[in-house]
Amino acid sequence: MNSDARAGAGAATGTRSAVVTVGEELLSGATVDRNAAWLGRRLAALGAPVARLWSVGDRDVDIADAVRSAASAAPLVVVTGGLGPTADDRTRDAAAAALGADLVEDETLLAALGARYRAAGRDVLPPEMRRLALRPDPGLGLANPLGAAPGLAFALGSEGRPAPVAEARRWVVLLPGVPREMRGLFAQVERLARDTFARRLRPVESRVIHTTGLPESQLAPRVEAALGEDRRGVEVAYLPDLTGVDLRLTVRSAPPEAVGDDSAGAALDAAEARLQPVLDGLRFAAPSGDLVEAVQVVLEARGWTFATAESCTGGLVAERYTRRAGASRTFVGSIVAYDNDVKVEALGVDAGALEADGAVSEVVALQMVEGVRARLGADCAVSITGVAGPGGGSPDKPVGTVWIGVAVPGDAGAGRGAGRVRAVRHAFAGDREAVRERAAQAALHMLYRELGGG
Amino acid sequence: MNSDARAGAGAATGTRSAVVTVGEELLSGATVDRNAAWLGRRLAALGAPVARLWSVGDRDVDIADAVRSAASAAPLVVVTGGLGPTADDRTRDAAAAALGADLVEDETLLAALGARYRAAGRDVLPPEMRRLALRPDPGLGLANPLGAAPGLAFALGSEGRPAPVAEARRWVVLLPGVPREMRGLFAQVERLARDTFARRLRPVESRVIHTTGLPESQLAPRVEAALGEDRRGVEVAYLPDLTGVDLRLTVRSAPPEAVGDDSAGAALDAAEARLQPVLDGLRFAAPSGDLVEAVQVVLEARGWTFATAESCTGGLVAERYTRRAGASRTFVGSIVAYDNDVKVEALGVDAGALEADGAVSEVVALQMVEGVRARLGADCAVSITGVAGPGGGSPDKPVGTVWIGVAVPGDAGAGRGAGRVRAVRHAFAGDREAVRERAAQAALHMLYRELGGG
Repeated sequence: MNSDARAGAGAATGTRSAVVTVGEELLSGATVDRNAAWLGRRLAALGAPVARLWSVGDRDVDIADAVRSAASAAPLVVVTGGLGPTADDRTRDAAAAALGADLVEDETLLAALGARYRAAGRDVLPPEMRRLALRPDPGLGLANPLGAAPGLAFALGSEGRPAPVAEARRWVVLLPGVPREMRGLFAQVERLARDTFARRLRPVESRVIHTTGLPESQLAPRVEAALGEDRRGVEVAYLPDLTGVDLRLTVRSAPPEAVGDDSAGAALDAAEARLQPVLDGLRFAAPSGDLVEAVQVVLEARGWTFATAESCTGGLVAERYTRRAGASRTFVGSIVAYDNDVKVEALGVDAGALEADGAVSEVVALQMVEGVRARLGADCAVSITGVAGPGGGSPDKPVGTVWIGVAVPGDAGAGRGAGRVRAVRHAFAGDREAVRERAAQAALHMLYRELGGG
Repeated sequence: MNSDARAGAGAATGTRSAVVTVGEELLSGATVDRNAAWLGRRLAALGAPVARLWSVGDRDVDIADAVRSAASAAPLVVVTGGLGPTADDRTRDAAAAALGADLVEDETLLAALGARYRAAGRDVLPPEMRRLALRPDPGLGLANPLGAAPGLAFALGSEGRPAPVAEARRWVVLLPGVPREMRGLFAQVERLARDTFARRLRPVESRVIHTTGLPESQLAPRVEAALGEDRRGVEVAYLPDLTGVDLRLTVRSAPPEAVGDDSAGAALDAAEARLQPVLDGLRFAAPSGDLVEAVQVVLEARGWTFATAESCTGGLVAERYTRRAGASRTFVGSIVAYDNDVKVEALGVDAGALEADGAVSEVVALQMVEGVRARLGADCAVSITGVAGPGGGSPDKPVGTVWIGVAVPGDAGAGRGAGRVRAVRHAFAGDREAVRERAAQAALHMLYRELGGG
């Protein structure tokens, strides 16, 4: 970011936030602080970018000191970690002391905690767990559906001293350090911030375009050329992982006095339109960013079912597919044929073909995909057979060689046996994990394209 | 971690350090701060564990503020980032201002910079690069063989004011933010610290014990009780995730006057021995921390093979098992029977039993595990059938209800069909992801225990 842009986003025109992450494991380096990065992204998106970050261990004095500094640095402070039931979870008490607020037992939190214990088949709430029903006074308890420890929001007046919730001008919010619980609670932080800071939030508007099939080094020059020089404030970031490259287009929203002017949205639309030609065949539509979602939508629309036959990926496609709720509407099952005997016995692969061409071959990929479709009674299927490494490579078939098969029904009216079946050879770069992840994604992408997606 | 143990490791007996990481990308979340974690590990190993961490953006005032706070918090401060040649690299100037030190051009640094430029085929040092030859006065420039920006060390007296290098009692060291350059320069930080703090450095020794099967809330009280009051300086940290809880035991090494006395190792041994009774049946041995590794070791030792039959986990056990290189020595394959028809057709589950007891039942778990073992020709197998949610729960079988089956060979000499087969019902807490992860881990753990592991 250049310094003009940063100055324009500064304290004068918007709200800033501060973050405190708590845990000895952050200081000792046992854990990389991904929570801080996640909060940084979400708070910027909310319109309250992070101005300062503190990480401290489990000592009361350190936590209190950081909370006090953070609360004087920004009107919105998010603290994560140290809210659990054990003796080294000190954040709740340290923050209350630092802010001069009380902690009181909250009926609603206590009831939720009791219900959680009963659901786990235990009658009596252990005494040390009772601390988890405390909330700041003045302040709010934030229900945590994913764990025992609720979030806590300390309500402060404009001078930084405790103030009634209805008159709060500043907030210090404590969230559990478990990433999924912290993330689950963040929507409540967003609501608090919107209610309190309203028009002083300057959200960064952004749009993510998911792509797969082309590495960043090849994608980026095409994207830059398509966007050209005049970008109307739109910045593009490349977020690559093993399954593809996400493009994030960002632009700062107009100042509040210009509400109604959707110049940010228009600039994003224009950029996206310019990109369309270079993204054809690479892009997929999935709010979650997971290609599985896009495939499920297409399969559901057609009323078709899906199965996989996997060798080197060991069930990764099936596992990814079923990770999403609702998979049972389209997913039938999978045969993981790691051993060659299983390819023959459970999938009907021809032993002679295995012998002649090897397990990593077009004929075996085709027989696997046809076999699993027939035996599990699915409309569509993918097969994967390859060399994930580190061993098993040969001059002909080095590590990264993967054959992927796909089978889909033919035109309407054709029976299940009919349809299109084909296989493609890939050469994936990287280690075992990279080859497996890339192969799974390529199989899903091949099915998606065969079904007319993208 | 209890506070007595921590006090024993505190400032009175050792040196603490502080870290400041500089860069807008850390606050915006565009970058995860891996430098902080790396420094945390190395400074702890050096004997000067990190007491506090600040992350700030590129503004002078923020950097100066953090450097000032850090310098008063610890006698050794490491700052990374913001040392480059561009306008937004502000760390050098901000630190000098914060500490009241001067910056002077250093002949040696300037010569190194010139040589670097000539080696790259350029004759003239661009004017803006000349800043990179500045060093603190009083202080040191630290040669950077991997990049243009040298490290800088500000020498301070015991009161925190600039002092001649020979009389330095405290140091603030600036390192580039590029990870490989920062790491390359760290040996010079270690030398400075050893020269200055010598016998006040107390390296940390640690040991990790992996457990699964008991949540932190139940494990921690048992561990604390077993360790008792007199811990010989051993601190314990709980690191939970969906698959279990790691215990990290940490102890400061003996003071230098006791060199040769391995009291740290002995204290860790003693703590581990005390924990053994409460960890029986929960602990597993795997340097990677992955229970799959422990299972693979046990199966390989016995020369047995493994298969899985999975419903609600959708192939997660198979995928995890094959993620590790060498899985093919023991893994045969898996049948993911998501659809009930697949349970009947591919696994031989009795349709009547499915109808009578439902898919999530003891009889189906048993038939699945026996079916997959027979059909894929494996020695050992696990089966998983349950309600992962969010839908599909009922009063009898709420979300989180999972039946897990396991089959292992009997005593030596018995045929493959013989052996022990059993199934256990679980009630897992959490959302779909949590139920699936916990079920997969519980299945691996059940197999591990049946095979005599742990």
